[in-house]
Formats: sequence, structure tokens, C-alpha cells
Amino acid sequence: MAELLSERTGPPLLPMLKPRDAIDELDRAAELPGVRGVYMGTNIDNRDLDDPLFEPVFARIEQLDLPVFLHPQQTVGGARLGDFYLSNLLGNPFDTAIAGSHLILGGVLDRHPRLQITLPHAGGALPILMGRLDAGWVVRPETRRLAQKPSDYLLHFSYDTVSHSGPVLNFLIQNIGIERLVLGGDYCFDMGYDQAIDFLDRLALSLEPRNQILGGNAAKLLTI
Amino acid sequence: MAELLSERTGPPLLPMLKPRDAIDELDRAAELPGVRGVYMGTNIDNRDLDDPLFEPVFARIEQLDLPVFLHPQQTVGGARLGDFYLSNLLGNPFDTAIAGSHLILGGVLDRHPRLQITLPHAGGALPILMGRLDAGWVVRPETRRLAQKPSDYLLHFSYDTVSHSGPVLNFLIQNIGIERLVLGGDYCFDMGYDQAIDFLDRLALSLEPRNQILGGNAAKLLTI
Repeated sequence: MAELLSERTGPPLLPMLKPRDAIDELDRAAELPGVRGVYMGTNIDNRDLDDPLFEPVFARIEQLDLPVFLHPQQTVGGARLGDFYLSNLLGNPFDTAIAGSHLILGGVLDRHPRLQITLPHAGGALPILMGRLDAGWVVRPETRRLAQKPSDYLLHFSYDTVSHSGPVLNFLIQNIGIERLVLGGDYCFDMGYDQAIDFLDRLALSLEPRNQILGGNAAKLLTI
Repeated sequence: MAELLSERTGPPLLPMLKPRDAIDELDRAAELPGVRGVYMGTNIDNRDLDDPLFEPVFARIEQLDLPVFLHPQQTVGGARLGDFYLSNLLGNPFDTAIAGSHLILGGVLDRHPRLQITLPHAGGALPILMGRLDAGWVVRPETRRLAQKPSDYLLHFSYDTVSHSGPVLNFLIQNIGIERLVLGGDYCFDMGYDQAIDFLDRLALSLEPRNQILGGNAAKLLTI
């Protein structure tokens, strides 16, 4: 990995952060009964997901055909988000938006078109910024190496239902598509749903799309 | 201001940052012909807007009955947003969400109910997080000193049209209200609209609501 590491000037790598180990663990876990996906942080030790260090990890995940579920950790914001639980209320959705933006603009999704990535908390702050990302792509040369405009890539992510808002899920259904929504609960955390399934009653859904969200979409993603 | 300053453990105050000077400037400018509002950063030297230091400034703005237009500056994110113009594409809407959250959860809007605050870039990342902020308000005691749930305060802000997205503006119209939308252009910046008025063609608006956005709502806000 030395040649990959030397390309970046990111923070010093902790001794525990060895992408080679991640690949070994992927190979081991992928053979275990019942393993159907990969859980990954929205950043790894403050390095964003388009860091060349992680390129072989994504290559192996794609090769293994395992979907990835992202979740925020070590979120952005520091002291600015120190009060009122904002490190979670804003920091989590911000970090998901940062991760998604790096996967798109850093070319990870172009290099690995079969990667299936699910964004938590209904995509966090990313979906509402679709127009802004596209506008940047029009005027800023550093964003132009993409094959398509950024919002096209948003259609390629999946999103859980943990928006805590019917209107926000309706926004996703209308602008991303119901086939990209999977039931989420955030179970056991204070920001989780008490009744993840009942939450869907806030949406005016007929039986078929409701069942897509309840399990059909996830079954396709997990190939079960 | 010494007693207000001593209540906080924020970053050291730059010599130039004197709220008393801001109040003097408000008093001077409010008397000038044509002055109808106040422009304010989403943070002031990395201090958030609920910092007690700014309390007398908001009190005077409220007293003068001047609407405030916020704009991001010194935005959050640092190196995480260093690539692909993300300091603007994400950093700006993040900072607006942080500012709005502190105005709400820090009690500024409760203490100054006549303050009129307009959020740039269609509210940035704030509107899509309405459900998440409300969910936090339900489960987290540190957010409970508010008179109403956070999303109720979102109805009290105004929002410019610089979303770069028809669906995002429709989301605001449906969930905030057309009477809170004012035309924005971000004129002269690379992320501004070339044709701010033509952008409204993306929305299926009849003449009356279109005219509200084009000027009616702003005329009320600016009392002209």
C-alpha cells in the first residue's frame, strides 16, 4: 500500500488502519454463512472514501458482489456541533453527504460501477443538495471528470427510511425512486424508530410499493 | 460585554469583534436612506449565533425591525471539504443549517420572536433535517427548552430560491409555504443563477404565487 499512501497528504495513518487487513477480513467474512453485506464508516480515521488507500478495498467489495451500508462515525463539525446533540442531529447527516459526495466526485462510483451503496438516515443532507452539486459540476472544472452529472449518481445509491419525516421520504420517492428505499430502524439508538414499520403509515402507499420498502428492495440488494 | 463574554468558553475574541460596535453601526445605518435590512454571517469568527455575546445585537435588530439575511462564511468542514469545491457545495449549506439550528435550539428565536431571518440557498441543508431535529427534540433533554418543536420554527424563516433544483423548491413550497420564499440570485458568484427569474419556470406556479416569490414576499419583509 506504500505507493498509494504516498500519493496523499492526509493525516498520519494509525497503525491499525491497514487496507490489506480489510481485504483479508472481507475474504474471510464473505465465506461465512449468512453474510450478505459490508458495513463501512462514512470516513475512515478522517480520510474520505475516495482516498486511493481504499481503492483496493472497494475493488474487492465489488468483486465479491456485496452491498455496502454506510454509517457516520467521527463526524465533521467539532465544537461548532458541540451543543444540543448537534454532533448527531446535524453531524451524522452531514457526514453521509460528505461520504456520498466523495464517492461521486472522487470517481469511486465510476471506477466501480457495480458497487451498491446504501446511505443511512435517508441520505442525510445529500438529497436536498442535488441541484447544488449539479450546478457546481457545470461551473467548476475540478468536478468535471465525472461520466454523468452528480445527481444521476444519487439514483444509484439506496437509502434507508430513517428520515423521521413523511415529507422527506416522499421527496425521495418522487426524486430518487421507490425502488431505492429500504426499511431502516436505527434500532437501539436514541434516534431510532420505536416502530419502524408503522412509520410507513405516514406515506400514502399502496400495498406493492409498501412491500418494496418493507423487504422487496432489500431482498434484491442482498440477493436473498 | 465582559460579563457576556465570560459566560462562554469559545475561541478567543479577535480585537475587531466588538458587539458594541455592531450596535453602533446598526444605529447609524438604520437611519440611512434605503437601508431595509441587515446582512449577517452564519457564524461570527467561528462563534455560533446563539453565543450570549450577540444577544444585545439581536435585541437591537429586533427593536429596529430590520430583517436579517444570513450568508455562510468561514464554513465548517476544514480538510474534509478541501476537494471538488465541497467547501462551497456542501460547506455553505451545512453552515446555514448550523446557524438555523443554533437560532432555534439556542433560544434566539424564542427570546426575539419578531426577528425575521432569511436563509440563503433555500435553507441549505436545514429543511431536509426537519424530522431529525424534531426526533432529537423528543428524546434529548438538552433540546427541550424550546417553546415549540424545531420544525415549527422553520416556518418562521424565509428562504431564497437558490436551490438550483425545482424539486427542492417544491419541497419548500409544500412543507414551509410559498409565503416564505423570496427570489435569490447569488449574483456575481460562480454558483449564482444566470437567469434567476427564468429559474421559476421550473415550478408549476400560477401568476399570484409566482409574483409572491418575485417580489410580494420580499416587499412585506422589507416593508416597502
